[in-house]
Amino acid sequence: MKTASLVQVSRAALAITLAIGAAVTAADQQVGRSPWGPGDEIGRLNLMTPESRAAVLSRITGGKTYDLSVEYFIGMPSWQAAGDPHYRIWMTHTPHGNTIADPLGLGETMNEHVSYTGTAISMYTHMGTHIDALSQFGLDGKIWNGFEASDHLGDRGWTVAGAENISPLIARGVLIDVAAAKGVELLPDGYRVTRDDLVGALKRQNVNLQPGDVVLVRTGRMKRYEDATAYMTNPPGMGMSAARFLVEEGGAMIVGADNLSFEAFPSEVESNYVPVHTYLLAQQGTPIMELVYLEDLATDGVYEFAFFGGSLRLRGSDAAPIRPIAIPVR
Amino acid sequence: MKTASLVQVSRAALAITLAIGAAVTAADQQVGRSPWGPGDEIGRLNLMTPESRAAVLSRITGGKTYDLSVEYFIGMPSWQAAGDPHYRIWMTHTPHGNTIADPLGLGETMNEHVSYTGTAISMYTHMGTHIDALSQFGLDGKIWNGFEASDHLGDRGWTVAGAENISPLIARGVLIDVAAAKGVELLPDGYRVTRDDLVGALKRQNVNLQPGDVVLVRTGRMKRYEDATAYMTNPPGMGMSAARFLVEEGGAMIVGADNLSFEAFPSEVESNYVPVHTYLLAQQGTPIMELVYLEDLATDGVYEFAFFGGSLRLRGSDAAPIRPIAIPVR
Amino acid sequence: MKTASLVQVSRAALAITLAIGAAVTAADQQVGRSPWGPGDEIGRLNLMTPESRAAVLSRITGGKTYDLSVEYFIGMPSWQAAGDPHYRIWMTHTPHGNTIADPLGLGETMNEHVSYTGTAISMYTHMGTHIDALSQFGLDGKIWNGFEASDHLGDRGWTVAGAENISPLIARGVLIDVAAAKGVELLPDGYRVTRDDLVGALKRQNVNLQPGDVVLVRTGRMKRYEDATAYMTNPPGMGMSAARFLVEEGGAMIVGADNLSFEAFPSEVESNYVPVHTYLLAQQGTPIMELVYLEDLATDGVYEFAFFGGSLRLRGSDAAPIRPIAIPVR
Amino acid sequence: MKTASLVQVSRAALAITLAIGAAVTAADQQVGRSPWGPGDEIGRLNLMTPESRAAVLSRITGGKTYDLSVEYFIGMPSWQAAGDPHYRIWMTHTPHGNTIADPLGLGETMNEHVSYTGTAISMYTHMGTHIDALSQFGLDGKIWNGFEASDHLGDRGWTVAGAENISPLIARGVLIDVAAAKGVELLPDGYRVTRDDLVGALKRQNVNLQPGDVVLVRTGRMKRYEDATAYMTNPPGMGMSAARFLVEEGGAMIVGADNLSFEAFPSEVESNYVPVHTYLLAQQGTPIMELVYLEDLATDGVYEFAFFGGSLRLRGSDAAPIRPIAIPVR
Repeated sequence: MKTASLVQVSRAALAITLAIGAAVTAADQQVGRSPWGPGDEIGRLNLMTPESRAAVLSRITGGKTYDLSVEYFIGMPSWQAAGDPHYRIWMTHTPHGNTIADPLGLGETMNEHVSYTGTAISMYTHMGTHIDALSQFGLDGKIWNGFEASDHLGDRGWTVAGAENISPLIARGVLIDVAAAKGVELLPDGYRVTRDDLVGALKRQNVNLQPGDVVLVRTGRMKRYEDATAYMTNPPGMGMSAARFLVEEGGAMIVGADNLSFEAFPSEVESNYVPVHTYLLAQQGTPIMELVYLEDLATDGVYEFAFFGGSLRLRGSDAAPIRPIAIPVR
Repeated sequence: MKTASLVQVSRAALAITLAIGAAVTAADQQVGRSPWGPGDEIGRLNLMTPESRAAVLSRITGGKTYDLSVEYFIGMPSWQAAGDPHYRIWMTHTPHGNTIADPLGLGETMNEHVSYTGTAISMYTHMGTHIDALSQFGLDGKIWNGFEASDHLGDRGWTVAGAENISPLIARGVLIDVAAAKGVELLPDGYRVTRDDLVGALKRQNVNLQPGDVVLVRTGRMKRYEDATAYMTNPPGMGMSAARFLVEEGGAMIVGADNLSFEAFPSEVESNYVPVHTYLLAQQGTPIMELVYLEDLATDGVYEFAFFGGSLRLRGSDAAPIRPIAIPVR
Repeated sequence: MKTASLVQVSRAALAITLAIGAAVTAADQQVGRSPWGPGDEIGRLNLMTPESRAAVLSRITGGKTYDLSVEYFIGMPSWQAAGDPHYRIWMTHTPHGNTIADPLGLGETMNEHVSYTGTAISMYTHMGTHIDALSQFGLDGKIWNGFEASDHLGDRGWTVAGAENISPLIARGVLIDVAAAKGVELLPDGYRVTRDDLVGALKRQNVNLQPGDVVLVRTGRMKRYEDATAYMTNPPGMGMSAARFLVEEGGAMIVGADNLSFEAFPSEVESNYVPVHTYLLAQQGTPIMELVYLEDLATDGVYEFAFFGGSLRLRGSDAAPIRPIAIPVR
Repeated sequence: MKTASLVQVSRAALAITLAIGAAVTAADQQVGRSPWGPGDEIGRLNLMTPESRAAVLSRITGGKTYDLSVEYFIGMPSWQAAGDPHYRIWMTHTPHGNTIADPLGLGETMNEHVSYTGTAISMYTHMGTHIDALSQFGLDGKIWNGFEASDHLGDRGWTVAGAENISPLIARGVLIDVAAAKGVELLPDGYRVTRDDLVGALKRQNVNLQPGDVVLVRTGRMKRYEDATAYMTNPPGMGMSAARFLVEEGGAMIVGADNLSFEAFPSEVESNYVPVHTYLLAQQGTPIMELVYLEDLATDGVYEFAFFGGSLRLRGSDAAPIRPIAIPVR
């Protein structure tokens, strides 16, 4: 049930709907129904088509690439408020350790000659550069398109709308460098990015948003990534007006930023501690990328690019690590 | 120490060296020294340049993409002989479970309204579609380019040649469909692919290898992926002659296949239980991709393509998951 | 809510109830209500009192001890049918590895001088010698004493009846050596132990059961513990008549055995795949110990002993590892 | 190689040696050689004999027990300076979750009827109430009795002196309540307990130490256990003079305390950041218990007791969880 039929709505009507997004008010705290039909699990990822990919691919120029991801290491930043696992890496095999443990029964001579190293990892799926699937946040026990936890959430995750449904991503990418527009190295702690900030930054960059874009907002926070406490403590983030602008006016397919959780805290909405997440994921069907590394794009002033991303196909997961690549376009 | 200087060797001499590879015999069981200098940690990934990327990017046609990765799920195949961790996924937050555990101290009303789902995973890094870093297999306590375990291997992995050094990968990709060339759905259990098999399949496909390619060999084993026991038991794989052909004659930058461990077992070399791995990684500096999903490429007869891949930047790891994408080229 | 009030029932009435157990038929598939009141979370563990402990402690003779537990190691037997985690152990610190990783920033001299080793583990809680809490198996969404999953089960386990409520255990222990009574080294694969088997073995041993006992049944399976496949494949276990005898006639406080899952499979009850577990835990409030090492007691013919056990206080868990000790009594 | 022969040394000579301990100076920073012979892996645990157990068991009076362990839960205190895993617990099976995931292929009716709950855990072995094996800290690449890491430390831990060698522990236990002796609820942050503090507290309690005792020192820190930050930040601990008194004058078999790491930080010895650990484990062969819950013993003024403890038999581990029990003696 990965792809939704487009037969049910005319493409013209759909384009309008998607360009402007559904008119959701903060009071409308219920999940959205997909214009792509009752079986749709991927929301605005439906905006990506062979044609949309061809359009951006045909504009690629040269062979310079930008790595939009961060490294995973013990001590890396991650959201810890709710007691989720830190990133761990450990050795299951080391060249000399194999000689002592001899897990394959090969004997000392072979183990000393063939130097085998193996590592294992564990992590919360919402750490490092990653993409949130639509199942991460819902409202009142339902997620995007009305799927109910009682019907679809088992001990190994959601049977619908999980990260395994996210296709390889190729789309027009846009960087909105809010920090640069404000003339600062990085936005102040706790700063809440507004619609006006985004509009102003786009104007400065002379770039427009188009339906189907992957839109990445730079706060500059990534400069502190190697210092987990500094990175995590009271970061700037998007306010509701910014989120709405990206979807309802900009028509974004995916939104992202370089901070820990995309949105700003504390919430602007009394009854909801993560209104930007529920708005984007549950009401608008818009996946969110977090901890995206945007420093090199910003340094070079690359505001428009071909975005490539393949998130891990973790069946049932509500997020997956991704290592996106940006390539400039003409 | 991520990129090696190319100043030390003339590009012309280097091109010849790399196109034909070092002449290594099975008896030469010692690690290779990099032609890119004593600091080189990435081996044949040095073959990728802005020019090489531009060359393949300029040939892209259309917007059709191929997903070359498999899903991660509990019960998925993985190499278990040496007692390494299976893939695990579990829920750290569920919509109703948050109400009971209330990890954020939000109270029942908020927890029931905002439906938060979180998952965590753990895994051996050599499972699912992944790429082996050069540190996975060495000889006599050293890895590629002579780095010694005693100097560079700590409790969190190698401080050199780890997976975090693998750049975003964009290169010409070639599929060698050995199963199709032999007229079978999948190669027989335990079949050892030879140089002649590869040469024959390439001839049938009318495709040549070029220095710097990502070369992916199809055994057809992936048809059994959902049945872990069937997939894992006595799989076909590459013999030494196949591995040497890919590097020394073909000039491959990265090699890969759709089976569990790339190479065939048992080993052809008495003193080495994984001679293909030590040859490729430690002697030739050639990363290996395993569990690559090649079925759709094979069905459509796409033998040449632009290969895109971003492996997770796991600091110190000897492998990393990757979700590669193929796009046909003209 | 750890201890239940005894005020509600007269001790005399209670003693009778507990000595004979509730008369539950296989058809009565609903959870039991505790005679210790609606807040009771520990079931028959209420049978342990200062007096009961004093009684057995006063009978101890000498200083010989029996270790009733098995070792934890990679590759150890564990129930794998439902995809639960295997036991894992790994090094987070090794003497030389600290020098390379230097996690404390101590520098090479200090790290080489102070040789620090650290290990971490992960496991399913139902492996190795362990005790099942009453929350492990219920019926129709409820566990022992009517606690409902919807009210008490969060993402970190049950808020009632979890393993942290199991007190330090000191009680009269009885070994029932069924294998010896049948004159075999170990019971045949798949053998289902009956009430008659237990009665016969007790008679042979000339030992009676008393209310409040920890009763441990030996099948002999432990002889295969180091060979996980042999241990796990089609083990013998208790049938329903045996389980009922232990509680309803014997008055056991805790029951246990030396096999993987206490009960025999496949189930005798069509509508229930683990009727012995649901009977004991959910209907009778009787914790179960599994993988108990009974070989030394059997060799020495020690059928009656003081049982000591302290299971780990894992908050919310439905089981906990335990390393019980037996000391002969006069 | 679990038990050491006592044949090599006369018991009389040994008793003297052990009662007073080896005369080690802080300058003597090299591992100790065992008086129990070159194969000894358990050090002062050799002081426990059937006779020593019988002696304390015969003095037990009544049936009151004291639980000396703490609970494990997400957010519990643990030593985090070196990046070790926190405690984690998660659900692998929940009653309703089984219905969705159906890991056993039982179907909805069965899964809804039989309500199965399963949990898994992961942890650093040095958390919660636990005992350090002699392998945790050594000097210059060797541990107690000269075992070398290069010979005995593999990827699954030490093949000698691991936690699996710790027998069921039954011994005379002594509480030294330093906080009470000083008239405080808990010792001040960072307080370093001295020999004089111990001598004074013992005098106040009118209790003497005897060779072979399990000696537990109370700092009062446990009052803060549920607040991890408060518990962990700058705790009080033992100084070198206290550690030496316990072994060399007191003849302790095992020492322990109610704080995080037994010893006080920062170290008194410039060249060694954990001199108390290396002294006790590597030089004197004395296991250490940490995070021991002593509040109830202190409240009741129980200074002498029968100590029972069964640590988990984690093969190769340098520590293991334990849930000790104390029973008053006459």
